[in-house]
Amino acid sequence: MIIIKMPQESPPASYGSHLTQGSQWPSTPHCPLETAVHAIAPGGAARLYKHHEQEVYLIVRGRGRMTIDGESTEVGPGDVVYMSPFSDHQLQNLDLEEELIFYGLSWKQKPDAGGDNDPLPQAERPTAPTLVVATPPTPNGDLHLGHLTGPYLRADVYKRYLRMRGVEVLYLTGVDDHQGYVEMAAPKEGKSPKELAGGYGDAIEATLRAMQIDFDHYARPQSSPYHIETVQEFFLALYRKGAVRAREAPTLFCESCDRFITEAEVHGICAHCGQGSDGNICEACGRPNDGVDLKDPVCRRCGDKATVRPKERFFFSLAAYEEHLRSYLQKVPMSSHVEALWSAMMADGLPEISITRITDWGIPLNLPGYEDQRLYAWFEMAPGYLAAARELADKQDHGEAGWRHYWGKSDGYRIVHFLGYDNTYFHTLLFPALFAAYGESIRTPSAFVVNEMYNYEGQKFSTSRRHAVWGRELLGWPGMTVDKARFYLAWNGPEQTQSNFRKVDLEEVLQRELIDGWEAWLRDLGVRLQRDFDGRLPAVGRWSSSQRRFYRQICETFTDSAEAYDMASLSLRRVTRLLGDLVCAAREFAIAESHWKGIEGRFEEWRTAYALEALAAKVLALAITPILPNFAEDLWRALGYEASPTDHGWEERLDFIPSGRDLSGLDRSFFS
Amino acid sequence: MIIIKMPQESPPASYGSHLTQGSQWPSTPHCPLETAVHAIAPGGAARLYKHHEQEVYLIVRGRGRMTIDGESTEVGPGDVVYMSPFSDHQLQNLDLEEELIFYGLSWKQKPDAGGDNDPLPQAERPTAPTLVVATPPTPNGDLHLGHLTGPYLRADVYKRYLRMRGVEVLYLTGVDDHQGYVEMAAPKEGKSPKELAGGYGDAIEATLRAMQIDFDHYARPQSSPYHIETVQEFFLALYRKGAVRAREAPTLFCESCDRFITEAEVHGICAHCGQGSDGNICEACGRPNDGVDLKDPVCRRCGDKATVRPKERFFFSLAAYEEHLRSYLQKVPMSSHVEALWSAMMADGLPEISITRITDWGIPLNLPGYEDQRLYAWFEMAPGYLAAARELADKQDHGEAGWRHYWGKSDGYRIVHFLGYDNTYFHTLLFPALFAAYGESIRTPSAFVVNEMYNYEGQKFSTSRRHAVWGRELLGWPGMTVDKARFYLAWNGPEQTQSNFRKVDLEEVLQRELIDGWEAWLRDLGVRLQRDFDGRLPAVGRWSSSQRRFYRQICETFTDSAEAYDMASLSLRRVTRLLGDLVCAAREFAIAESHWKGIEGRFEEWRTAYALEALAAKVLALAITPILPNFAEDLWRALGYEASPTDHGWEERLDFIPSGRDLSGLDRSFFS
Repeated sequence: MIIIKMPQESPPASYGSHLTQGSQWPSTPHCPLETAVHAIAPGGAARLYKHHEQEVYLIVRGRGRMTIDGESTEVGPGDVVYMSPFSDHQLQNLDLEEELIFYGLSWKQKPDAGGDNDPLPQAERPTAPTLVVATPPTPNGDLHLGHLTGPYLRADVYKRYLRMRGVEVLYLTGVDDHQGYVEMAAPKEGKSPKELAGGYGDAIEATLRAMQIDFDHYARPQSSPYHIETVQEFFLALYRKGAVRAREAPTLFCESCDRFITEAEVHGICAHCGQGSDGNICEACGRPNDGVDLKDPVCRRCGDKATVRPKERFFFSLAAYEEHLRSYLQKVPMSSHVEALWSAMMADGLPEISITRITDWGIPLNLPGYEDQRLYAWFEMAPGYLAAARELADKQDHGEAGWRHYWGKSDGYRIVHFLGYDNTYFHTLLFPALFAAYGESIRTPSAFVVNEMYNYEGQKFSTSRRHAVWGRELLGWPGMTVDKARFYLAWNGPEQTQSNFRKVDLEEVLQRELIDGWEAWLRDLGVRLQRDFDGRLPAVGRWSSSQRRFYRQICETFTDSAEAYDMASLSLRRVTRLLGDLVCAAREFAIAESHWKGIEGRFEEWRTAYALEALAAKVLALAITPILPNFAEDLWRALGYEASPTDHGWEERLDFIPSGRDLSGLDRSFFS
Repeated sequence: MIIIKMPQESPPASYGSHLTQGSQWPSTPHCPLETAVHAIAPGGAARLYKHHEQEVYLIVRGRGRMTIDGESTEVGPGDVVYMSPFSDHQLQNLDLEEELIFYGLSWKQKPDAGGDNDPLPQAERPTAPTLVVATPPTPNGDLHLGHLTGPYLRADVYKRYLRMRGVEVLYLTGVDDHQGYVEMAAPKEGKSPKELAGGYGDAIEATLRAMQIDFDHYARPQSSPYHIETVQEFFLALYRKGAVRAREAPTLFCESCDRFITEAEVHGICAHCGQGSDGNICEACGRPNDGVDLKDPVCRRCGDKATVRPKERFFFSLAAYEEHLRSYLQKVPMSSHVEALWSAMMADGLPEISITRITDWGIPLNLPGYEDQRLYAWFEMAPGYLAAARELADKQDHGEAGWRHYWGKSDGYRIVHFLGYDNTYFHTLLFPALFAAYGESIRTPSAFVVNEMYNYEGQKFSTSRRHAVWGRELLGWPGMTVDKARFYLAWNGPEQTQSNFRKVDLEEVLQRELIDGWEAWLRDLGVRLQRDFDGRLPAVGRWSSSQRRFYRQICETFTDSAEAYDMASLSLRRVTRLLGDLVCAAREFAIAESHWKGIEGRFEEWRTAYALEALAAKVLALAITPILPNFAEDLWRALGYEASPTDHGWEERLDFIPSGRDLSGLDRSFFS
């Protein structure tokens, strides 16, 4: 028996209190508790304390004031106080005559990341209504796998996961028609920019649907009832406040073409990273430029060297919002790369951003004297989100609240934004600063889920160079299905590091993981159940220790999958590998446990082995639902469930599949 | 602030006590605690309780009697009682006038395997002095990879692991000279059985040494000062007690060879599994036979059909020890296959075992009238272990205690026995029964670590058929080293299921995992440290959340490795894969964290990234030490440590590598 007895000798003083009993449990490796009985002298106080362990105080006798992170309350006998890791806490004895007696119990986190100020972020059960947003792609081509595997698939998977967790969730995306890339691409196809944007806008939507990307609104600036009005009103509001100002500035000009050039119209060398870059943003390092910052700029239309002319344009000063941005960004989960980018830009001094272009493609300023200018497409995108949210609100019968229903700071949804790394600066700096400048309470994202670049056979995917596998092209490959395509993109797509799409690897992975792995195991399970139990799943019986280990792996795979779906640590690579490992383990388990068969007195263990294997199949169905919705439904039904795993939801506590179910239907084709 | 306040209303009665406060923490997902304040009426008692959660009672007021699993003690204010999962516990109020007030705190185990009576076995820190035993191989050939990857490498790895944990550990193995297989093989090589056993005994020892199998005693019956005497004394003791008895029994006979045949001399069909089997034991299903049980037995020497003649032999009745064996075996960790075997044999009724053979190779009975018989080599092995233990005791200066120093029931070592599945019956049934029959207190193993069969290019390894890759042959392959050989055998060897050795897979795995994986990462880390910090490891700075996630993976890899080295769940496949995953994660981490470089104000995070990568390398060195001792030492020194990771020991709490160390030496060749 393990009892720590109250010592008889008088207590030593520590932590500003008398510590009458302090001990870690001597011989209980599974017990992470440390415990102590403390006494605080009348009128005294324990030291202000802050540590990485969680702690609980149980007040035994006396009257005290508990202060945690600046908040105070009175406590008395029977009260139980919880302190999270790294919280400031102090207990004070309010009585001037009696000691205050309390237990302190603390227990170690595993692991203790130590050395900093807040606990290791862990996947929490998501609850807040969420708007998932994926940055609208440019309609200068259809979607290739670099687009799809990045924001669009990942946002879809995250939405499906949240829906399984019972969270109200909507997915917003669309197209950004007014990019200079549309203007540049149009003549090559013998179309007007508007026609080009319209055609590829349709194509992109069709591709998203073909990949079963489950968006709730697909915003199209050209046909939106609100877009132009919202954007112009937003610009004018900033203009009236003096947040955007016109001034004459050196501006790139092409003498041969006789026009000012920017964005897609120009190419040069990025002053920050030394790699090739178009105007306005460098895809390689993610830093914005003003065109004139580029080294050796040339005109994309004619190939001539660009010159510089003075021209009055509108600018927005990011620097004015540095403190606002810093305090916002420090609270938002994001990758190290993203954090490094805004840190570097702040360290260099945030730049002025040109928000108008000298062209006729885009939204006019609606301001006399600037008829030759259009709003910069990335400026347009910030209010564009609000316009899109307003359209979504109409669709969802929340029209009266308008965009505020989703994007309002106090009453809106939690926003989780999916984007490629090359759009980082816009979303982490420009838009939050523009929203702040607008002055009304506009919500900013709770997380940025940012993916790095996808490469295709060693070189980056590119719409403009047409070096790509297109989404619908992939779906047309022999034997390809939506689920197989989604699986490989989840398995192989870039997350915090770049990755590479190779056709031969795709074929190998799909064969090995899905056909020779998952499907072969499930079929075999069906065949064995048919042979041994007429197809009927037996009930759980007695457990052997190796069965308990397998059960632990099943449970851990499920909880680890939830963490891998969390917005702060989203990793479809991890989910697919976790489930692949579970299937491998299940196959070995099936062989190792086959020996119970027919052994008198061991029928109980034999039953348990089958029940556990079926539970693993259930976890596979549930945990893969966000990624492979069709396979998951097929498997779910083969496991004897009705409806879909999405409706079933993410189980908080794993339940065994009810015994007696006919699971012989597992012996079917899922992928092959 | 999270405070559960004592409610004012009168408490409801539950659990046989008044529960004045019961609640799970409402909004703290990281807090697994449930807490309650209980009051037990004067003279009353709470219900006898038993549950899967751990629980702590803190006695606030009154005087009680705490009973846990039948043990009682008096408790009073300030006492803190710990109850492990599934313990019976009850608290009684000893005072007839006052209430007994106490807090109950319970918290969930993760996961709860449920449904049974004891908690999920977890890897505990090993402490007991341990004798690791690997079943002596038969010296009818050298050791092939099927032998090596099975008991011998695994026992060596387990020994090295225990030594790192600070446990006193010795490793005992040897050869079993008197097997019939030696007698059968000798004429083919033109040698006497004794010469053959001597030669291959030397060869096996040399192979074990070449593979750096670190045994402390290699027992050789032919040259042991104790072996024959101990075995004969053991037999006679059993004979005197009536535990072994001679009786006339039908016995296989070869008319052409004019001799009784058994074991290696005969081949037929196993009555249990229908597969081909030699006499005495079926390698396929592990069931013993008496030769006459075989269907269609033929003589191995001449190929003629065997006949049956009556012959007086000695028998030992296993059935008499069934209850003893059952109660012993239920407490010992083992695989499902092993558990299934003894269960099946008990269900069929335990057989009588013939313990003498009609031959002149082996140990004579030393009993007049039976000069034509020799003791069965597997009977000999049980007392043979005691003789070997006595030799080991001499070597270790414990000669006065003899075999009891290691093998004595009360004062001996914890014995962990490593064997191939085909030796299961001998070790789980025959030996424990013989030891029980001997009547003196002889220790039995605390765990059986049993491996399944290794196949070579699809067919089972076989010494007698010479279908094998020999241990020293493998070491002679171009580019092969001891560490590489050990790595592949650990990665690929059979554990709870059979596995297959393929040369092409070996080459692929070594290249991918060790050279392109581990070595490439370590070299790159060395190069980057040289470039960025003059080779000196920086100190830990501020942490980003992705760094905390990587830190968690490092810690979990280390604790999971400890579990994979535990005797109850030993899996070298798991260790090598866990570490491979860690290296993959470290490489991705290095790329994702490279962006901090040179960013003002983010030097702190950049430092942390390097400190974490170096910590991952340290975990790699520590966790791989039992499997790859040479690589681990090289890496350990490259990390700036002196001595060896074995001397350093398995860290209970991971410490960072001290900053300032010159780690540029990581840029070296480890495997290539």
